[in-house]
Amino acid sequence: MNPKQTSASSRWLNFKENNYIFSDLGFALDLSGIAMPAGFKSEMEPRLQKAYDGMQHLESGDIANPDEGRQVGHYWLRDPKLAPDLGVRAEIDSTIKRILAFSGSVHRGETRARPATKFTNVLVIGIGGSALGPQLAAAAMASPNDRMRMFFCDNTDPDGIDGVLTRIAAAAGGLAATLTIVTSKSGGTKETRNGMLEVANAYKRAGLEFNKHFVAITCPGSELDKLAIGEKWLDRFPLWDFVGGRTSIMSAVGLLPMALQGTNISEFLAGAKAMDAQTRSRETNRNPAALLALAWHHATGGAGKKDMVILPYKDRLELFSRYLQQLVMESLGKEKDLTGRVVEQGIAVYGNKGSTDQHAYVQQLREGVHNFFVTFVEVLKDRGNVAEGSAPFDVEPGVQSGDYLSAFLQGTRSALRDKGRESVTITLTHVDARMLGALIAMYERTVGHYASLVGINAYHQPGVEAGKKAAAGVLNIQNRILNELKRTAVPLTVDALAASVPELNDEQETIYKVLEHLAANARVRKSSGKDAYSAAYRII
Amino acid sequence: MNPKQTSASSRWLNFKENNYIFSDLGFALDLSGIAMPAGFKSEMEPRLQKAYDGMQHLESGDIANPDEGRQVGHYWLRDPKLAPDLGVRAEIDSTIKRILAFSGSVHRGETRARPATKFTNVLVIGIGGSALGPQLAAAAMASPNDRMRMFFCDNTDPDGIDGVLTRIAAAAGGLAATLTIVTSKSGGTKETRNGMLEVANAYKRAGLEFNKHFVAITCPGSELDKLAIGEKWLDRFPLWDFVGGRTSIMSAVGLLPMALQGTNISEFLAGAKAMDAQTRSRETNRNPAALLALAWHHATGGAGKKDMVILPYKDRLELFSRYLQQLVMESLGKEKDLTGRVVEQGIAVYGNKGSTDQHAYVQQLREGVHNFFVTFVEVLKDRGNVAEGSAPFDVEPGVQSGDYLSAFLQGTRSALRDKGRESVTITLTHVDARMLGALIAMYERTVGHYASLVGINAYHQPGVEAGKKAAAGVLNIQNRILNELKRTAVPLTVDALAASVPELNDEQETIYKVLEHLAANARVRKSSGKDAYSAAYRII
Repeated sequence: MNPKQTSASSRWLNFKENNYIFSDLGFALDLSGIAMPAGFKSEMEPRLQKAYDGMQHLESGDIANPDEGRQVGHYWLRDPKLAPDLGVRAEIDSTIKRILAFSGSVHRGETRARPATKFTNVLVIGIGGSALGPQLAAAAMASPNDRMRMFFCDNTDPDGIDGVLTRIAAAAGGLAATLTIVTSKSGGTKETRNGMLEVANAYKRAGLEFNKHFVAITCPGSELDKLAIGEKWLDRFPLWDFVGGRTSIMSAVGLLPMALQGTNISEFLAGAKAMDAQTRSRETNRNPAALLALAWHHATGGAGKKDMVILPYKDRLELFSRYLQQLVMESLGKEKDLTGRVVEQGIAVYGNKGSTDQHAYVQQLREGVHNFFVTFVEVLKDRGNVAEGSAPFDVEPGVQSGDYLSAFLQGTRSALRDKGRESVTITLTHVDARMLGALIAMYERTVGHYASLVGINAYHQPGVEAGKKAAAGVLNIQNRILNELKRTAVPLTVDALAASVPELNDEQETIYKVLEHLAANARVRKSSGKDAYSAAYRII
Repeated sequence: MNPKQTSASSRWLNFKENNYIFSDLGFALDLSGIAMPAGFKSEMEPRLQKAYDGMQHLESGDIANPDEGRQVGHYWLRDPKLAPDLGVRAEIDSTIKRILAFSGSVHRGETRARPATKFTNVLVIGIGGSALGPQLAAAAMASPNDRMRMFFCDNTDPDGIDGVLTRIAAAAGGLAATLTIVTSKSGGTKETRNGMLEVANAYKRAGLEFNKHFVAITCPGSELDKLAIGEKWLDRFPLWDFVGGRTSIMSAVGLLPMALQGTNISEFLAGAKAMDAQTRSRETNRNPAALLALAWHHATGGAGKKDMVILPYKDRLELFSRYLQQLVMESLGKEKDLTGRVVEQGIAVYGNKGSTDQHAYVQQLREGVHNFFVTFVEVLKDRGNVAEGSAPFDVEPGVQSGDYLSAFLQGTRSALRDKGRESVTITLTHVDARMLGALIAMYERTVGHYASLVGINAYHQPGVEAGKKAAAGVLNIQNRILNELKRTAVPLTVDALAASVPELNDEQETIYKVLEHLAANARVRKSSGKDAYSAAYRII
């Protein structure tokens, strides 16, 4: 046997040993591109057993988010009988039933804003966990049979909101035929509140009664919930404390928009439930989430030393990388471990889709800074809607577009391997609601297992408050500035404003940034100064 | 003075010293969030002077891409008189004129496929440099006044192509009113060729003559050029050897789609030309590209040690991070430096937009693995189409949606700074065609200067061929498999196929992957085996 043969045949053995096939799920996980040394798995096994224990406690209703004193119940959403509380079970069940009834009623034209106009468009207003899940699902499930057109408003950018409203106006039916879902778990998310107010104003400008178009998804009793009751919105759907934003796609947050679009949400939930059953296995080789968590640990040194590049070779999964960016980075990006030690954990995630990204940055992946591992997502079925018996469309004799897509994936994987760049390959037989549910469930569990392996809490986000507080401080400064400019009615410089009231002392940089923004929007006027910093501002 | 005051006032001094304002360009670069030590700039100055020399040579027509023996002339596209060759000048000029004439004729309905149908939709087929630029421009310039609706096909995913065709069918006019631009510099890009064939087939299925809808953008004499001539396409626009894909947005690749959408391409080019003039300055403090290259060098250790997170706080600039991902990673991700030493250079780039991304992964940025620096892109003007004299829309008394956007940017920046995370802030007064041109030009030059600082060539991409070759190998293997299965007409296993012909020896893994893909698309049939690897396959 010559060396080349040895290497090829050992590669085949390696592939057969490390390509984990889960036929019932239509799913395979190929770890042959991650060079885990012999013994690594058995060395990690005790920690995995601990992870399985932790997951069992979590699923049984332990307080897994101690910061907020919350249970972590996203696994209950697809298998309500797991929920330890009977009331919770009933609420999950009844919410799914109400979503099915409501979406059916909208589709049949029974629920509508005015007698003559059926709802044909859906606008979802939300941000973060309240937007990315529905956005992913809308793109992944899009088909010529969609029941409604989906639009999203996921920021407090007024120009961006105007852009969404322009696109809605251009769609059949326009705003009059648009059902708007406002999603905020806490009911107090400012970006979402602002989007809601801007969109309500657009309805008013169009002579429409916005409350007959608005639906709320929020925790019962929240500010948003009260508003929706007070303003007599079309409907309200509950969200619960035990569901984190980044894992809320299987609550009303994801299910209501999906059902309206025409996706089979029962199948979506069933796929997740089936995957959950598989990833509950204590036999590591039969647990894809545990296996993937091991691969992450090996590839990143258990310390985020490598970035995770996600490359689905399927246009409809393009947002999956962004979805994982949120799920992984918000769950794993933690300062302290469970013992309180500073560890600065996390894994950076990015990527769009193959083979498109090959033309953007595979140059660097293959030859440049070696700070990443790749996850290829392969989908075996090429196209959905080929009529039975229709001739295949060949781009060359016997070769189809999808063969190229597949060959580019294999080719890039092997070109990276030749340069010692590691990769995971996930193979899906096809993409449908059931598979999407399974895929998301697999990653949710992987994140949980990985967090356990590195000893951190995946279910809180203590670091996001500081930015919000600082933003509130900036708005407070803006308020002070405007008051001061109104009060004095003479032009004031940054330094003069800083000296004017205690709250503005030492805040020159923020004052300057606020004034610059107000001036650009014609809310204050800038007088000339010898430079930008000595200019004076006054109210217009 | 108490310590807090010292720190606040020194921050203000630091800001004033490091916030570089270029008023004529409506542009500022704030490097106060990058802790460059005193002396760093003067230490780097000799290398910058060398970078300026190199850029001068490049602009004068030196062979800056020695691999392909090519000049690098993207700066000429916006200032043709820089081109050393008179013929090149004339070609650039005449192409711009032809684009303006063609798009005007389409808008007036003079250029049309059939007498009754005006073109109202544009479909761009291209990948990498031939897609991302036009996609960025389409999103960044979108307005209610758009002359045509823009669609893109940027992959060889047949399901994705079907999806684009579904969306076109739903748009006013449908495919019959769609002008299709096929862009490939070499004229041989397989993804684009496949998209072209699939889309041409869709026109045929709809009873339309595709050649009356097709326009080619390619190097004269290419395979695609010959095809367009032979099939009598509507028109052809040239691309040149001296323009790299990732810097082709100011050639016909970007200009034709932009002009069709209704963007003022003369302003776009003028903005780039004005920025080029600024970034030609040999006075480093007056050269934003040089300053930014210094910041990159300091932040990444000149060795890609930190990722670059791009956060534009403006929905219409969301694709800018992807555009930079391509520009930066393909330019800087290089194995060897100019002396041939292995350096594995590059900077990983990712990001989407603020404040949306704050809800996705600022948790990790603030507290988790410290492997990045952030670039904030701030836009001062909040919304474009506010009618003169119309009342401002307040979300709270005196507070507008855009104030929140601005406050979230300032708040996040300060929360990151508190944790020692570095950031650059780019401020734009507004976004229009001129500003977009300037912004792109600034980054093109920064990449060039940075490459010079670290001693690599930014203008070639030697690493991308390996994946393409390997993909061609996979398709060759598929062909051999199909031939062998046809020839023997009995079911064969992976191992049997590998043993059957020399070209398949030792290729078991690839054979398995190819068979799995063919079976999922009903092109071969899989017989049961005791496991996936012992199954046999035959032609259906």
